[in-house]
Order: sequence, then C-alpha cells, then structure tokens
Amino acid sequence: MSMGEAKPVIALADGAPDWARAAVQAGGGVVGPLTEASALIHLGGVSALPQPMPDGIRWVQLPGAGIESYIKARALDERRVWTSAAGAYADTVAEHAVALLLAGVRGLVTAGAQRSWQRELVASRTTGLRGTVVTVVGAGGIGRRIIELLAAAGAVPLAVNRRGRPVPGARETLPAERLDEVWAQTDHVIVGAPATPDTRHIIDASVLARLKPTSWIVNIARGSLIDTDALVAALRAGEIGGAALDVTDPEPLPDGHPLWSAPNTLITPHTANPPAHQQAALAARVKDNVERFVAGHPLLGVIDVAAGY
Amino acid sequence: MSMGEAKPVIALADGAPDWARAAVQAGGGVVGPLTEASALIHLGGVSALPQPMPDGIRWVQLPGAGIESYIKARALDERRVWTSAAGAYADTVAEHAVALLLAGVRGLVTAGAQRSWQRELVASRTTGLRGTVVTVVGAGGIGRRIIELLAAAGAVPLAVNRRGRPVPGARETLPAERLDEVWAQTDHVIVGAPATPDTRHIIDASVLARLKPTSWIVNIARGSLIDTDALVAALRAGEIGGAALDVTDPEPLPDGHPLWSAPNTLITPHTANPPAHQQAALAARVKDNVERFVAGHPLLGVIDVAAGY
Repeated sequence: MSMGEAKPVIALADGAPDWARAAVQAGGGVVGPLTEASALIHLGGVSALPQPMPDGIRWVQLPGAGIESYIKARALDERRVWTSAAGAYADTVAEHAVALLLAGVRGLVTAGAQRSWQRELVASRTTGLRGTVVTVVGAGGIGRRIIELLAAAGAVPLAVNRRGRPVPGARETLPAERLDEVWAQTDHVIVGAPATPDTRHIIDASVLARLKPTSWIVNIARGSLIDTDALVAALRAGEIGGAALDVTDPEPLPDGHPLWSAPNTLITPHTANPPAHQQAALAARVKDNVERFVAGHPLLGVIDVAAGY
Repeated sequence: MSMGEAKPVIALADGAPDWARAAVQAGGGVVGPLTEASALIHLGGVSALPQPMPDGIRWVQLPGAGIESYIKARALDERRVWTSAAGAYADTVAEHAVALLLAGVRGLVTAGAQRSWQRELVASRTTGLRGTVVTVVGAGGIGRRIIELLAAAGAVPLAVNRRGRPVPGARETLPAERLDEVWAQTDHVIVGAPATPDTRHIIDASVLARLKPTSWIVNIARGSLIDTDALVAALRAGEIGGAALDVTDPEPLPDGHPLWSAPNTLITPHTANPPAHQQAALAARVKDNVERFVAGHPLLGVIDVAAGY
C-alpha cells in the first residue's frame, strides 16, 4: 500500500481484548468488521475461525507458534496468506529450554528431591554444559535462539533442520535425513521441531539407546516428538541421564502417569511461554505484521500450508 | 628465572596424587623435598600446612578459591606469596549460579515439587531472566563470568565490587560502600563475594525487605554472606520470590533445618564445583602458575593477606 491510500481495515473477533485493538492501530491498521476487512487477527482456536472466510481476507494472523491443530482440521486454505506467531516466543521458550537443560546437567533435579545434605549423591549427578555437544533438533526461531544461548554458555551446538541450511552459532548443521549421524557425538538433546507426521517419535527407543548414560533430553516443542513409553523405559533403566520436559504426550499428563514417577525427570506444565509473556509478545508480533501488511512487506511467520508448519 | 638456569624445585606433600606431580612437571618445575624447594603446592586444609614454613619457600599455592579458613587461623604470613585457586573454578561455578537463577525464575522449583499438571500454579511462578536487572555482589573471577553469561542471556547485570572498578558486561559497577543504592532497581541477586568480616550478612533482613516478591536470591559463595534466619523468615512470608543456594550457614545444613522446608527454596549441597571438575581445573591452574613462577611472571590468584581474600 503506497502513501496516501486509506489504512487497511483489519478484523478482530467480537470481544477481542484492548491490547489487540491497540496493536492493530499501532501497526497502522483500522479495526473494522470482517466483511469490510482485508485481514483478520484471529486470537481463538481452530473452531473459532470464521466459516466461511470472506474472500476479501487476504491475510490471517493465528495466535500460536505451533499450528498442527489447524493443519489437522484442514482449516488453512491456499487462497490467502496465513501467519503463525512462530518466532515471536523464541526468546522466552529458548530461555526455558536452556533452564531445563541446566537443571539436568547441574544436578538440580536430583538436589531438588532431597531434604538432607547429600553431597556425594548430588555431585555424582552434576556435570557441566560447557564444552558438551548439544544437538538441537529443529532450528526455526526457537532453535536458533537456543543455539545462540548454548554457544554463549560455551557449549557446542549441533543443529538439525529440514534442509540442513547452516544455522549461525552451530558447529555443524545437518539435514533431517542425516539425523542418525548425530547421536554418536551428542552429549545432550533439545527437541525444538514442529509437530508433523515426519517428526512424530523422532526420539524413539533406538535413539535413546544411542545416547549416553549422562545425556539429558529436553523437549520444549510438542510431546508427540518423543515416544513416551520408550522414554519412561530408558529413564527407569538409567540408559540416559534424564529428561526435562515442558510438553508431554499425552498432554496434560494425567495423574499417575509413569512419567510423574520416572527417575531424573523434571516436568514443567507447558509453561515455557507463560500467559503474561505470551500476550506481550503476541501484541508486538501483531503490531509488527500489521505494519508490514500496510507497507506491503513480507509478513513474519508465514505458514507453508503444504509442508504443515 | 632466566633461560639456562636450573628448573626450580617445587614441593608436594607426601602422597600427592599423580595429576599434581604431572602438573608441576608440565609447568616446568621439578618435584622435590620441602627443604630444597622454592615453592609449595599445598593440596590439603589449613591444618596440614607445614609448620614452620621453611624460609626458602617463596610461593605457596592453596587448593581452594575461598581462603577464609586460612585467614581465620592466621596461617598466611607476609614473608612469601600465597595464591588461591580463585578464578580457576569460575566457569563451572558461574554456570551453576546461572542454572540456579534460571531454575528459580522459570518456575522449575515449583514445578519440580508437583506430581500433577498444575499449569496455573507453575505459570504464576514463571517469569523470565531476559530484560531483568540482576545484581551480582562480588565481581572477582566467578562474578565476572556470571556477568558475561547473564549479558549473553539478555539480562541486565549490575556489578558490586570493593572499589567499583568497572566490570565488562555490567550496565554499572558500584563500590561496596554504595551497595544500598542497588536494591531499588534490582530484580534478582547473585551473591559471589568472598567471605570476610565485611561481607558477613551482607544480605540481611533490611536488604530482603527491599527486594521484590518475585526476586530470587542465588548464593554460590559462602553461606555466611546471607543471614539465614532472616532469609527463612522472608521466604515464609513470601517477601521474595525464592532462594537457590549452593552454600548455607550452617554448612552442611543439618537435617530438619528450617531452610529444608522453606517455600520456593532449592539447595544444592556445595556442588557448584563438583570434585571431578575441580581436579582438572586445579591441575590446569597449578601448571599455569608453575610456568609463571619459572618465568618470573605474576602469579594468578595472589592473596591479599591484609584484605583477607
């Protein structure tokens, strides 16, 4: 849109919060009804999407970073641009991932379970992150930020992404088809890939068997990327050092599930992107994308509907 | 010592481990008896120091980073150079400090105590490190490395050291006498100062009262720097976010001590510098200092006997 043209009308669902309205306006848009709008900021789940979507809507912003529920419901068509919040939460989720990994390698999971001074026990479970090879599976916005943080902490990050396009800060980046090659040199694993049919159970019994007895596995992506039964078995057998998980399969993890009592396991209940933070980050992303839409610049977080992420 | 002179004789206690002998030799020294030596690598505690120390000993290397037990026993004279291992353990201890702080701010201490999916509870205890002001009290080798790690993670480090000499990476460095000024702008605190009469209870009830209900306190230095009773009271009252401690007062913390059951508290039993790591780091420091001694260069970790650290 060139200078002097009218501001584009952007639709928000009825009852959208003030911060969303403010973000649209700050980005240079005018909030208006769906039937007159050229874009929609959607803040609900897949079932709340307008059906049918008016043809005038050229762009829809979705609220989450993971969009597999929309893909599964075939809710995304190719008649307009869809954007997710991918990358908007990268800083907070990456920080959480590194916090989980550090809690594992520094013996905090063991220490937190003690109510007496068990120095020998905790020391035996304490290593360090510095100098270790950490494989980051999935190197989108979150994975890239994880790799930056790991490199700054003196770890040696290995990246794995779909096509093997080099990730800054990683010692090496491998394409997903060569994932098998990384395990022999891996000390720890962080799972950060999108949930697709290709990534389901990407960490399975055979991968777990190739890790070290000191290896920690962190998952801040989706529970389905790890074979939960195989993980519980590996933890019980001491095949790996431990698991620190922000996401689980099933999720929410039901009371009494074996993961709750597996040794060397820390579970945060999908809180890597806590609600208070999510709102501020999404507001910033909406403002940013509305600005880009107004200016005709490429949007952030464009979904590849065919690829499913 | 100039080229061509004989290698200096360095004494080791009887029964010193092979790695210590190897480190002395790698540094260019010859291991020999105390009476013929010009330096001593001391690996034991204060009670194992040779009494009297032969006048020929011009340098003594001590094994620890904190040397308050030697100061208290008046075991260090000013007739020779004494060095501690200060700084040799900076990387591992700094990593532990950041791990403890992240465990606090990311809700891991709360999450680790749950055996069910308490998303709302854990999210309410989850903030982030990025963008927060972290005051690092004591900016020797460990403090400096902590500040590097914090800056890389996007936190805003404030440094406090004896004279206020600027620390790289800190937004500001204050001298100890201006410590009072930092609390109003502090989100979290890491205690990393040496234990001296001046630093005893540097974190007391009045400091705790000025922190925020979300502030975490990390101690990786010495337990005596925090008033334990005041800390327990602040934790119980919810005056601060929590405490993550690698050192305590008393230490070891006895069974049943109120800190074990204080809310939002994580204790690692003085494992920031785990034994396996300590040996490798001390060997590297001994080699390095022997090289410096041979070459007549300034030694690392020289103790200021009058200042007490």
